Formats: sequence, structure tokens, C-alpha cells
Amino acid sequence: MKIASFIHAGQPTYGVVQDTRYLLPTPDFLARHPDLVSVLRADALPELERSAAASGIAVAASDVRALPVIPNPTKLICVGLNYKSHVAETKRADSDYPSLFLRFNDTLAANGDTVLRPAFSERFDWEGELAFVIGKGGRHISKAQAFEHIAGYACLNDISVRDWQRHTHQFTPGKNFPGTAPFGPYLATRDEVPDVRQLTVETRVNGEVMQHASVGDLIFDIPTIIEYISRFTPLSPGDVIATGTPGGVGDRREPPRYMKDGDVVEVEVTGLGILRNRIGTDA
Amino acid sequence: MKIASFIHAGQPTYGVVQDTRYLLPTPDFLARHPDLVSVLRADALPELERSAAASGIAVAASDVRALPVIPNPTKLICVGLNYKSHVAETKRADSDYPSLFLRFNDTLAANGDTVLRPAFSERFDWEGELAFVIGKGGRHISKAQAFEHIAGYACLNDISVRDWQRHTHQFTPGKNFPGTAPFGPYLATRDEVPDVRQLTVETRVNGEVMQHASVGDLIFDIPTIIEYISRFTPLSPGDVIATGTPGGVGDRREPPRYMKDGDVVEVEVTGLGILRNRIGTDA
Repeated sequence: MKIASFIHAGQPTYGVVQDTRYLLPTPDFLARHPDLVSVLRADALPELERSAAASGIAVAASDVRALPVIPNPTKLICVGLNYKSHVAETKRADSDYPSLFLRFNDTLAANGDTVLRPAFSERFDWEGELAFVIGKGGRHISKAQAFEHIAGYACLNDISVRDWQRHTHQFTPGKNFPGTAPFGPYLATRDEVPDVRQLTVETRVNGEVMQHASVGDLIFDIPTIIEYISRFTPLSPGDVIATGTPGGVGDRREPPRYMKDGDVVEVEVTGLGILRNRIGTDA
Repeated sequence: MKIASFIHAGQPTYGVVQDTRYLLPTPDFLARHPDLVSVLRADALPELERSAAASGIAVAASDVRALPVIPNPTKLICVGLNYKSHVAETKRADSDYPSLFLRFNDTLAANGDTVLRPAFSERFDWEGELAFVIGKGGRHISKAQAFEHIAGYACLNDISVRDWQRHTHQFTPGKNFPGTAPFGPYLATRDEVPDVRQLTVETRVNGEVMQHASVGDLIFDIPTIIEYISRFTPLSPGDVIATGTPGGVGDRREPPRYMKDGDVVEVEVTGLGILRNRIGTDA
């Protein structure tokens, strides 16, 4: 099942993707589960699927305004430096542990949103990534159990303001400009992805391929990420973890390349659709 | 005015501190503003003061369970390396910008809570700090306007798991174990602090003074912190910013000293009360 979040009739809601339309669950289901986090907390994905199939209520994708797949996670965690090709281009040493930073929820954006570069930085850079969403929460989750805790997967673009990321050793500022993390277009539930290592992550700017890698090339694979993170913090349904970006970011090119007004950036992960955003400038 | 958050009659609530009791606002006020963030969002501190004085409802501090001053900020931001005495002991270079990291809300703890050291780390360290709470939100706040955006001040202990903080260059894991940031015992509104630079921050472990510094020694003062942070992220009422810890952390002592089972750690800031917590072990 593929699930999208969007605004319909003025209300944030969600529905099951079917071609170019979304099947809404029944009003009763929506009243009990007003957002996808509530659905995940209630372990109600199978009921959502049945409800959307039975409700007879559908809206055209073109008639709604998209939202980030999960607009309101309790925790939004990003892994940095998790592909050898990216670690190499940053000239950083290998690490025994995943490098982690946090984003605020207001940094999330939807598929189709214009992403605003701050007027005071030219160094606005793409980072195409695979993200996953927690379905079953927990602490001290073992690698062996890790996949059982995943609800599904989506594309995420971890857009970075490079000068602000490097003001100090902590990445926080450059990763927390509002609306700089497009997340979508939909959540593909875990059953749609038999082997996540077979997926390919690709980032294109104005159609030109900038990043292309296999999820199998992750330095810290998904079970390792879940085991590590859940040792220090409890995970709960709806939490979002972005797995890191491959080599090919603009800032490490010779000469460097950045995104500017009117550019179109796309992140595509096999089976997870295309996350497409236009760049604008925050005046 | 001094305001505490606590659980009373099974409900999270808040009240105005008067000696050893809390004056509650009227049920009508509480219905409109269920928590302190709502009070700040409605700019209703003066109304809270009048309501608490008029309601005639008081509870003994000893009869309630304390909560973190603001249990549910939208953003919880910490400044690292913000006293020369601490930068010197870490042997890090000076920086032109404040170093920032984020904490999840579930890392907050109340005055009096037992703070649990993870059983798998011996390097559990204190960091006494002055924290401030945003009253009026905004983006691109100038230094000159900064203090007008502050609702008040409180003590915060930014307790750190040092080995996990240094797994990589990003501090995230060592700063995000649950319940490791005691925050209280109360919020002193801005009018109670005529000149924040005159305040003294002191940390004691089992009565022994470990850190002692003047807020006037901050490398990046509060207006600079607010201006810098609000350039990349909008601040909103109830957001919490911890200003950094002075020299004297346990990890940089010769020999290093850490907190262990049964230790009592206190953070005291002039006029902001004593934040006292016992250390336990998470089995």
C-alpha cells in the first residue's frame, strides 16, 4: 500500500494512492485516526487499507495540496556520512558509529512545494536520501528485530545550507532552515519493499543526474541504525529516520554547484516515486 | 512572578509559586490555557497572575509531582562551548558562531526526579546552565529587540553521556538519553531579572561546588544567541534555549569525575532557585 498525506477540504488528512487519485478511509476511521501518526500508533494500517477500499470516497491528486508524508513526527533524525562515496568526497575519516543530527518538524516540506533558499546564502545543496518511518516503537531494538519496527519508506531531500552547516562542528543550523526537507510523495509500506538493499537512490537537478547509488552501499545499514539509535532514545510510531546521502553533493564538486532560483530538484528511490521540488528565494 | 509546572489531581497543570505552595489560576483560565505554552502563546502572563491571585485555589508544593518548567516546547535548543573556562578545558579552538545542538522533549526531567545513568556508560556528567524561554515568537530577531522575546528564565542541567557524545563529531546521542535534562524548579518571568549578566550559575555534586561562573562571562550573550538562532529558524512561544555550561565539567577534570548511583546534583542560578536531582541507574 502507498499512502499520501495532503490537505483536502481545508483539513489535513491522508489516503491510499491509486493511480492519480487518493482513496480516503471512512469518516469514522478518520475521526478515530486524524493523521498517519495516529494510524501507526493504533497499528491500524490493515484497517486503513480495508476502510479506503470500502469507503467509496476518492479525490484526484491534482485537487489536493500535498503535505509531507508524516507532517508531525515526534522525532526526525538524520544520519550523516553514510555512503563511502560521500565520506570520501568530504575527506572525513571513517567512523565506528553513525553520525546523527536532528531536524525540527518545520523543516519538512511536501512534494511539489517550492523550497526557499535563504537570500543570504548561495550554498544551497541537495541530498537525496531514503527515509523510513517507525511503525512499532521501542527501546533497545536488536538488529534482528529492526525491520519489524518499520512501517514503510519514502524519499527525503535533506537540503543543506552549507556555510551555515559549517559555522561550527555541529550541523544544526545548516540543516534547520524551514521547509528544506521535502519528504514524499508517499509512504510505501514495508511489504512493498522485499529487499531495501536493492533500491537505488537518485538525485537530479534540472534533469541532470547528480547522485546515484544503491541502498546496499550504506555504511551503517538500516538494522544497525535502528539498533544504535534505540539504545539512547526510545522510538515511537511515526518517527522518521533519513539514512544519509550518497556521493555527488554540489558542495564537493569541482567546481562546486548549488541550487538557484527556478531549479527543479528530484529525488527518486526505486518504487517510492519521484519527489520533485522547485527552488525559490526567501526574500 | 515565579511559575511551576506540575501534576495535580492526575492532570498536568501549573501555578504561581508563593512560598511553599502554588496558587492555581481559575478553572476557566486553565480550560483556555491547559499548559504554560498556551499561556505564552496567548500572551497571558498578566492574566495568569491576576487569575492565580483571585482564584483562592492553592496546593502545597509537597502535594504535587513536579514537571519540567515547560514540558512540551516546540524547540529545545542547547548552546555548547559558551564559556571561555569550558572552551579552554575542552582544548577546542574559539569559534565565530555559537555551537548548537538539539534535544528531544523526552530528555526533559523535573526538579526532584531521579535521573537515570545508562548502565552501559560510566561517563555521566553534569552541565549546569541558565536556560531561557521564548515568550514572543519571531524570525530575524535583532539583538536590540531580543530581550522583548524572552518570557523568563530557569535552571537547566544538560546532563551528558560523554562517550556517546563523542562517538562522532555530532553530539546528538550523548545529549538525548531520556530524562537527562532536569529543568526547573520554576520559571522566573523576565521582570524578576533586571540584568541577566549579574546572575551566577553554580553546580554542586553532593554539596561540593563543581562549576561556578557569572552569566556575564558568556562568549555569545543572550541577544547574540537569539539573533543567530532566529536567522535560520523561527522561534515560537515556549521554545527553550539553554545557554551553555561553564568550566568544571567532570570529564575534563584530572582525574575525571562522573556521577554515580545516589549522587545528588544541584544547579543553582541566582534568583532561579535550586534544581536538585538524584542519580540512579537504568538497569
